[in-house]
Amino acid sequence: MARFVDVRNMVRWVAEHGPAQVIAGMIEYIEDDFRRWEQFDKCARVASHTPFGVIELMPTSDHESYGFKYVNGHPANPARGFQTVTAFGMLADVHNGYPTFLAEMTVLTALRTAATSAMVARRLARPDSRVMAMIGTGSQSEFQALAFRGALGIRELRVWDTDPAAVAKFLKNVEPLGFEVTVAASAADAVAGADIITTCTADKAQATILTAELIGEGVHLNAIGGDCPGKTELDPAILTRGAVFVEFTPQTRIEGEIQQLPAGFPVTEFHEVLAGTKPGRTSPEQITVFDSVGFAVEDFSALRYVRDSVAGTAFFEEIDLVANPDDPKDLFGLVSALAPVL
Amino acid sequence: MARFVDVRNMVRWVAEHGPAQVIAGMIEYIEDDFRRWEQFDKCARVASHTPFGVIELMPTSDHESYGFKYVNGHPANPARGFQTVTAFGMLADVHNGYPTFLAEMTVLTALRTAATSAMVARRLARPDSRVMAMIGTGSQSEFQALAFRGALGIRELRVWDTDPAAVAKFLKNVEPLGFEVTVAASAADAVAGADIITTCTADKAQATILTAELIGEGVHLNAIGGDCPGKTELDPAILTRGAVFVEFTPQTRIEGEIQQLPAGFPVTEFHEVLAGTKPGRTSPEQITVFDSVGFAVEDFSALRYVRDSVAGTAFFEEIDLVANPDDPKDLFGLVSALAPVL
Repeated sequence: MARFVDVRNMVRWVAEHGPAQVIAGMIEYIEDDFRRWEQFDKCARVASHTPFGVIELMPTSDHESYGFKYVNGHPANPARGFQTVTAFGMLADVHNGYPTFLAEMTVLTALRTAATSAMVARRLARPDSRVMAMIGTGSQSEFQALAFRGALGIRELRVWDTDPAAVAKFLKNVEPLGFEVTVAASAADAVAGADIITTCTADKAQATILTAELIGEGVHLNAIGGDCPGKTELDPAILTRGAVFVEFTPQTRIEGEIQQLPAGFPVTEFHEVLAGTKPGRTSPEQITVFDSVGFAVEDFSALRYVRDSVAGTAFFEEIDLVANPDDPKDLFGLVSALAPVL
Repeated sequence: MARFVDVRNMVRWVAEHGPAQVIAGMIEYIEDDFRRWEQFDKCARVASHTPFGVIELMPTSDHESYGFKYVNGHPANPARGFQTVTAFGMLADVHNGYPTFLAEMTVLTALRTAATSAMVARRLARPDSRVMAMIGTGSQSEFQALAFRGALGIRELRVWDTDPAAVAKFLKNVEPLGFEVTVAASAADAVAGADIITTCTADKAQATILTAELIGEGVHLNAIGGDCPGKTELDPAILTRGAVFVEFTPQTRIEGEIQQLPAGFPVTEFHEVLAGTKPGRTSPEQITVFDSVGFAVEDFSALRYVRDSVAGTAFFEEIDLVANPDDPKDLFGLVSALAPVL
């Protein structure tokens, strides 16, 4: 039997611990896995593009466990009553290939994306950062706010979205949590004076939500929304003004903001910063850019974290995913035992 | 909610219809999909190799539905009480990326592999074929026997396996079904005089279970077991004696028997035979070889078939795989509704 955490149990598990606590725990799991980067099989995710959006498979393995996530990205979904991103994923034992753990990952992806952003920002943002601008107040936004408060103490938010209903939803969700939120009049207004800028929009288009002259010295830019070929958020001139950090270069060259730049444009993989083999931020004035697209190792870490956390609780059920005949070569016996086959 | 067919329901569904009937229905679904080959996104499967075996993801899409299978192949598993192959898979709607159908595919893979072999053989084997040799009597063997009886009327089997217990299991399973089975003294003995030869062994090694001089004129060779880099069954001289047919050339060049031959070795993709754009068997004396590795479109067809067949029955349950907030941008509301998040 495999363990299965469905949406109801995932939500109950998050509520039991609180999303801020879950994100904090997840940051440690992701950082642990980034610190053993070389142990993982890594490949760019396998994408199926259509005019509607993209469907992707994201596999990785540390040679003890294998994991993958199924995830879609459909920018026009919310206007039709669907979510932009849904996901589920699993873990298997490498030694015999048997699936052991299956989980919804729509909620989990939101948590792990925020955890990854905060993990990176606590190394790259200025330690005295106080104000975060957020461009885009969709599904991911509240999770980002909580993650940055937990990891960096950010309580002042300046937000902007082209959808007033999304802004109202964001205010409703985060104001009870004690944030000081200013609704900006434009993206430019939002980022003026911000220490950290989080861009999290979802158009499947070459958008330019920020231009280079808007980015002040010393800013850390957490760029989440550009994550597909042809889907970018930033003026490429921003990227050449600062130091760019990525998850897994071969995938980010295809999907990230740096798809707008030549293939030789220098970037640092974040695990190198953790390992101390490459510098992170080198001065208070430097602009640092995390060109985030989401990488399979983060999902692997998130699945490990949930699996470990729900063990011994009621937040999972067992499902019958692997046929298990007494004689492993007698699969046919399973089928024929119930009825004559003639 | 997504529909889920677990092992118990898959077994009950197969038993209800009988495996022979299920295989017959599946052949039609697979052939329908092979006839619209150009509509599918196709790529070689994504494999993670270790000394234990391989774990693979096999995605495809016809731009209306997206499907993938998770599958492992661990040749040493049976000796440790596990099955060589386990699998599960899913279908999703391309227009919004939402998963709609999840199923165990250990049993289903056995059925679809047999269905694919029979679909190909009924075009390529001599119409007067009467005797099938089977090298390997593991998990796949009974399904192959049933499939070839249904599609080609084969009732005489000559079997050989290095594992006497596997042969005994095969006899126990198929003798009540009315086959005439001869247990051969060797692989050479099994294939002598056979019209069709099915090779279905599982060593992850460059094995040579048959050499070229053993293959008589007019034989159709259904070669299933070689399906990984470094995992082959046949003397390469067999391949150059006959016409070789494959599923999807880029994947078979990596995984199939033809990995032993230069990349330019001519092969025919079976969908071309169905479409009439390339010849199948051209004479009664010709040797035809189906270098089968298993392709994603076959799993897509098998999933479609089960999905359609179980609709309106009790052979599935609904699972809560996709978080579905009332406001699609308010994923956080789902999590925070249950408990304070401070």
